[in-house]
Amino acid sequence: MTKIDDVARLAGVSTATVSRALRGLPTVSAATRRRVLAAAEQLQYAVSPSASRLAGGKTGTVAVVVPRITRWFFGTVVEAVEEFLHQSGYDLLLYNLGGREQTRRRVLRPASLHKRVDAIILVATPLRTPDVAALTALDLPGVIISSGTAVPGWPCVRIDDVAAARTATRHLLDLGHTRIAHISGDPDDELAFTTHLDRRRGYQEALRAAGIRPDPSLDVESQFTIDGGNRATAELLARGQRPTAIFAACDEMAMGAMTALRDAGLRVPQDVSVIGVDDHDLAGVLGLSTIAQPAAEQGLLAARILLDPLGARTLDPYAGGIPAPRGGDDVDTPTPPVILPTRLVVRESTAPPREH
Amino acid sequence: MTKIDDVARLAGVSTATVSRALRGLPTVSAATRRRVLAAAEQLQYAVSPSASRLAGGKTGTVAVVVPRITRWFFGTVVEAVEEFLHQSGYDLLLYNLGGREQTRRRVLRPASLHKRVDAIILVATPLRTPDVAALTALDLPGVIISSGTAVPGWPCVRIDDVAAARTATRHLLDLGHTRIAHISGDPDDELAFTTHLDRRRGYQEALRAAGIRPDPSLDVESQFTIDGGNRATAELLARGQRPTAIFAACDEMAMGAMTALRDAGLRVPQDVSVIGVDDHDLAGVLGLSTIAQPAAEQGLLAARILLDPLGARTLDPYAGGIPAPRGGDDVDTPTPPVILPTRLVVRESTAPPREH
Repeated sequence: MTKIDDVARLAGVSTATVSRALRGLPTVSAATRRRVLAAAEQLQYAVSPSASRLAGGKTGTVAVVVPRITRWFFGTVVEAVEEFLHQSGYDLLLYNLGGREQTRRRVLRPASLHKRVDAIILVATPLRTPDVAALTALDLPGVIISSGTAVPGWPCVRIDDVAAARTATRHLLDLGHTRIAHISGDPDDELAFTTHLDRRRGYQEALRAAGIRPDPSLDVESQFTIDGGNRATAELLARGQRPTAIFAACDEMAMGAMTALRDAGLRVPQDVSVIGVDDHDLAGVLGLSTIAQPAAEQGLLAARILLDPLGARTLDPYAGGIPAPRGGDDVDTPTPPVILPTRLVVRESTAPPREH
Repeated sequence: MTKIDDVARLAGVSTATVSRALRGLPTVSAATRRRVLAAAEQLQYAVSPSASRLAGGKTGTVAVVVPRITRWFFGTVVEAVEEFLHQSGYDLLLYNLGGREQTRRRVLRPASLHKRVDAIILVATPLRTPDVAALTALDLPGVIISSGTAVPGWPCVRIDDVAAARTATRHLLDLGHTRIAHISGDPDDELAFTTHLDRRRGYQEALRAAGIRPDPSLDVESQFTIDGGNRATAELLARGQRPTAIFAACDEMAMGAMTALRDAGLRVPQDVSVIGVDDHDLAGVLGLSTIAQPAAEQGLLAARILLDPLGARTLDPYAGGIPAPRGGDDVDTPTPPVILPTRLVVRESTAPPREH
């Protein structure tokens, strides 16, 4: 008798259900999954290669859905995912939403992906209730990178966006700034999704912790792009009452802010400090201070979780292990996300305010 | 009798061969293809949708092979290709070579792509004789973007790299520079391929036309990346005899050059002018003068040529029509490439030399 039979007997389910539960397929109920995981743990069941989350796949292909491949974060994630998938013998079907609702609906329609892929990696893809239902109906393993909506059974890999924004804002506060503006995503912009809400929250938390009340006139919404940052900063300057520092919700917005400031005859950091989030390839060239996030590592870890769940649990020094789902209760608690660390990188774009 | 029968009779081949010749499949001989095209032209045969280059495909999938998706040019091309393919109901299999010879060999092995894709778009992918044979053996339609090696029957879309480099160098000469350095790709670097050879040729041609003999000490080879540009410029400065201007073979190298100059305490453009090729998203942010090339347009046109060859011939104002193959002779002349135009964009990084 194989070990998997023992796990099945202990959990009171079939071996097929054990395999499906361990591969994280969405159609296994949360209660059953917990029972199987508890049994596997009790019996110290080592998942064999054939119990990989992709073991049931027949297409040799993984779908990767990104908002815009031309943006630094998404390109970097896709490159890392692609390398690991191809080294493991899998092909990558790329879906670039490009802000097109039509594309999003088509991709997330079960018929589009059914029998075309063995698994799905969603990168910062906005999900509505019918989308989650459609993905669940596909009954495929998947991983979510950097997004707020859960799909049953799918692990999530991301950074702590609230903490990243707090650190950025605190850096500006520590330099002596008090008039700190924030430029962030438009809530109607699908590409921005929940990320910008979390980053705004961190900004406001840091201000309040320093006894500063967030000023709505210093908070401008735009798109998560160079152009978006440029327009948001122009709008900020047009409102009068110039800030002494700007926390941009991503590096591309920060770069747009630097351009708008230069066009307005203002110097960075002498007149206005600027900080972003990402550590974009070109942040160093521009001397941009930022909160670095490990983009390639998020992609690599997501691919590893799909292809080698046990390996992923131990391989990545960043991850500190993938937290196991909590057991014992009956509510359908989603698996906690794997949070990768961020770090403050101080370059030339931030300095104390002049009056300081 | 349908028109295609007329074409077949006039050309003295089967209707299947007419279809294959019009779709540009590599296994139709050049002589036969010319005969079919001449007959189709004589009979004013309008290719129906079912004669699209992808008409014979069964997978609904197109492979796109790029050196590095994280580089501006390749990401932009892939985004444009992806949008057109998905709007036309095709999926995109992404192959990111990432400088890995192993990946290149695997992708270009017929078994990898056979029955997985209906067509192939190769973006700046180096091809050796066995690679061309392998691709020909697949007998699939394809398009080549920005590359020097021909595959029989596959159109090529690109810019004139020699002319782009001549324009960049002439801009520096016109400003009064005579000590103009060139930083370009390493000939052993697969990613650079023939592009850097053509760009060096344009640089040298422009110098010679101005009566300046190219100085090998001002010509440094490195990688087509930010880091590559940084290292090449550091090397250039270490050689003494500083140039007053640098023509970088791509914008990412130019950005690396700007960083290296700043790190050496030199100002752009007061001490050294810098110009690149691309018009990268961030060229404006950095104030980088450059030779702009239409990256998205090259991707879009390649996808159109695959899916709607007749439409592509007339739709794109850039293209000026896809040149028809010459007929009448017996040598196997490849179809001339479709050349999209480039243009000089002058920003803040170029100015007359100080002593001027």
